[in-house]
Amino acid sequence: MAERLVVIGTNAAGMTAATNARRQRADLEIVTLEKSDWISYSNCGIPYVVSGTVDDIDDLVVRTPQQQRAEHRIDVRIRHEVTGIDLDARLVEVRALDQDRTIKIGFDLLHLATGATPVRPDLPGIDAPWVRGVQTLADASHLLERVGGDDVRDVVVVGGGYIGLEMAEAFIDRGARKVTLLDAADQPMRTLDPDMSELVTAALRRYGVDVRLGTEVQGFEDGAVVTTDGPVRADLAVLGLGVRPNGTLAEEAGIELGVAGAIHVDRRQRTSAEGVYAAGDCADVFHLVSGRQVHIALGTVANKTGRVAGTNLGGGQASFPGVVGTAITRICEVEIARTGLNEAEAEDAGFPVVTGRIESTTRAGYFPGSAPITVKVVADAVTGRLLGGQLVGSDRAGLRIDTLATAVTAGLTLAEIVDLDLAYAPPMSPVWDPVQVAARKAMKHLPRT
Amino acid sequence: MAERLVVIGTNAAGMTAATNARRQRADLEIVTLEKSDWISYSNCGIPYVVSGTVDDIDDLVVRTPQQQRAEHRIDVRIRHEVTGIDLDARLVEVRALDQDRTIKIGFDLLHLATGATPVRPDLPGIDAPWVRGVQTLADASHLLERVGGDDVRDVVVVGGGYIGLEMAEAFIDRGARKVTLLDAADQPMRTLDPDMSELVTAALRRYGVDVRLGTEVQGFEDGAVVTTDGPVRADLAVLGLGVRPNGTLAEEAGIELGVAGAIHVDRRQRTSAEGVYAAGDCADVFHLVSGRQVHIALGTVANKTGRVAGTNLGGGQASFPGVVGTAITRICEVEIARTGLNEAEAEDAGFPVVTGRIESTTRAGYFPGSAPITVKVVADAVTGRLLGGQLVGSDRAGLRIDTLATAVTAGLTLAEIVDLDLAYAPPMSPVWDPVQVAARKAMKHLPRT
Repeated sequence: MAERLVVIGTNAAGMTAATNARRQRADLEIVTLEKSDWISYSNCGIPYVVSGTVDDIDDLVVRTPQQQRAEHRIDVRIRHEVTGIDLDARLVEVRALDQDRTIKIGFDLLHLATGATPVRPDLPGIDAPWVRGVQTLADASHLLERVGGDDVRDVVVVGGGYIGLEMAEAFIDRGARKVTLLDAADQPMRTLDPDMSELVTAALRRYGVDVRLGTEVQGFEDGAVVTTDGPVRADLAVLGLGVRPNGTLAEEAGIELGVAGAIHVDRRQRTSAEGVYAAGDCADVFHLVSGRQVHIALGTVANKTGRVAGTNLGGGQASFPGVVGTAITRICEVEIARTGLNEAEAEDAGFPVVTGRIESTTRAGYFPGSAPITVKVVADAVTGRLLGGQLVGSDRAGLRIDTLATAVTAGLTLAEIVDLDLAYAPPMSPVWDPVQVAARKAMKHLPRT
Repeated sequence: MAERLVVIGTNAAGMTAATNARRQRADLEIVTLEKSDWISYSNCGIPYVVSGTVDDIDDLVVRTPQQQRAEHRIDVRIRHEVTGIDLDARLVEVRALDQDRTIKIGFDLLHLATGATPVRPDLPGIDAPWVRGVQTLADASHLLERVGGDDVRDVVVVGGGYIGLEMAEAFIDRGARKVTLLDAADQPMRTLDPDMSELVTAALRRYGVDVRLGTEVQGFEDGAVVTTDGPVRADLAVLGLGVRPNGTLAEEAGIELGVAGAIHVDRRQRTSAEGVYAAGDCADVFHLVSGRQVHIALGTVANKTGRVAGTNLGGGQASFPGVVGTAITRICEVEIARTGLNEAEAEDAGFPVVTGRIESTTRAGYFPGSAPITVKVVADAVTGRLLGGQLVGSDRAGLRIDTLATAVTAGLTLAEIVDLDLAYAPPMSPVWDPVQVAARKAMKHLPRT
């Protein structure tokens, strides 16, 4: 009898694993189980559907169950929720939601791609229908219904991470009367250093978002978000408090969890249980700079780790070296990007730190369309090795983070970055790329050798 | 008495050296000699002034002699042409063009930043006033006068390198009746592989340029460019045949020349003569991938090598490791970029070669504004090490070349590029960056280990 691979969860990390396992091994039986109505969609695109930038919610769907069946012979079962894993019996217990019954499916190999869930703190009123997270297409659909109507005039976004800020912008774009962003911290976007984050705050305010920092949410009642600074009227509250990995199923089966409750995996995406792999938002991942396991719920990581898991599940050889924590978004006309460790993270990881922060332009200064860009680099104060970088700017400034991400990964020093042969032409960049100007500035703080 | 540094040539490599020498050493007397009317300007910007994209020719001027004197105590003498160097007597012979007399200036240290000159082959009629190169602000000024009038209806661009293509676009933008591009080779942009270059030809033709390949120019007469395929009517012919380093002064003084007649320098920008340095378009430079000295006349290289020369001239310690041959331009609505070695160059340098060429999009496929991008990577067929990359695309596709330039410099393999933690967000990139998709494709041709 053919061996069977069961995959729990069918978004990026699940479906990528399934198709890569199929590529390795034609004879494997592959069953994928999905509790929702959709497989393989771009959750990162939800804010842009809500804002109206992307026309149709269906545009976010990458693959349909029919395609997966036809092209890869993968048995895709939607509305099937896995409720338990029995490692000894090699069985998963599945609730078939439409038939309202529980079935058992045996597996030889198991892949966990259970994803993550938006944080919903245990606050009074948080389960009210006007308090929404942003993750599934069901969330998108609900938010979309509401932006069209007249009833959503005051929107409160709780939490200043990527999704929170993208949603704040989306509701401004949709003509909400008032959009308020609440953050308990004294800066939004805590993956940036405060001196970079303040550029984001300024961009939000210029765009019309009422940004209230150091404001803690205490509950939701009577059409208002209750905060430590008093109530804020709201027709709709959107939660952007980050996500938590869905590790409970694994934990209950006796599989080891790691940082932040994520399923602990090795470089081959193997969990602590024989024949069981995990990838994507539910799993932890190695950070190449800090040398620590971290939890980073991003589509890029899910795709890469899903591919590695799938190759190994199919009998191939693959390993994932790790991430450097690159992230990017475009909010209120500025692009914001980061990679590696920020100043606080670098200090926390034990590095002696120097930084360089500069303002430059995205094109030759005289070229029409040239826009400001601020770049900050963080480096090891002894060796000069680049540890991380952050940037804020418009005019497609953001992709320059990839230069820094590559340099961080390769372990380049500030001096090596200054010497890099980066592209220059007046419509695209200044003769010294902004990332090089920042590196040059940081170099001044290095000890002279 | 103070030591004196004489700098010949005051564009990027000259002025950068002068200011960096000043930074190192306050007591140095610095005299810079410039035969033209201008110092420090962006020749790369000339096509954009001619096209009208940049309003004013003066926008290209980076620094004035007055600024250099006031800010850096540099004695700037324009319209002073150096006619000879006496290394034994430590003197330069200078023609002061306005006074019509020759003077001698002693030096302790000498820096050569004599630049390069557009190639003007010895063809009948090439000295006619309607046949122009594109390099100095005098050229820019002449071309600009002519685009305004009615007399320039038919423009012929000779040579399909960067400058030639930029000028072809510029005259289309200015409403020329007909713009013809002649190239003796069977592709424009010979720094690209033919399969990438054909995308450039297609973009030129879409934009309205009559591209004639394999057509050799034989002369210029009676308002026509005479070619192997017959005469082509022309009110103006623009030469884009590349440049030759200005090495004659150095050669006559007994200084060693290297590849393509460029002044040979070491990592510290020292020439073969004691106390004499050179940098920029007149000098050769080390190519980090081929391991050979090359001649690359680009502003980025001029600035970097000028900085290294200046630091050393001022008594500091600096060295320049080399280039990887990165270049970029935007022509007829597409951006074209390359780095490292192309397929033919890699083979010529003795590498066993694999390539990967893919089409992808600049943003998430569903995101408005997403545009096609074609990426090709060239790698060592044995080790998988990235040797070079080329790309053609719109929507700010070009800057992705910096990711590849950094990867080439760091010696990353295709597998390491696929694993890079590059930035993803729907408005800026697909979840797998196009450069990673290309690397993945090339990997398929590597031997399985």
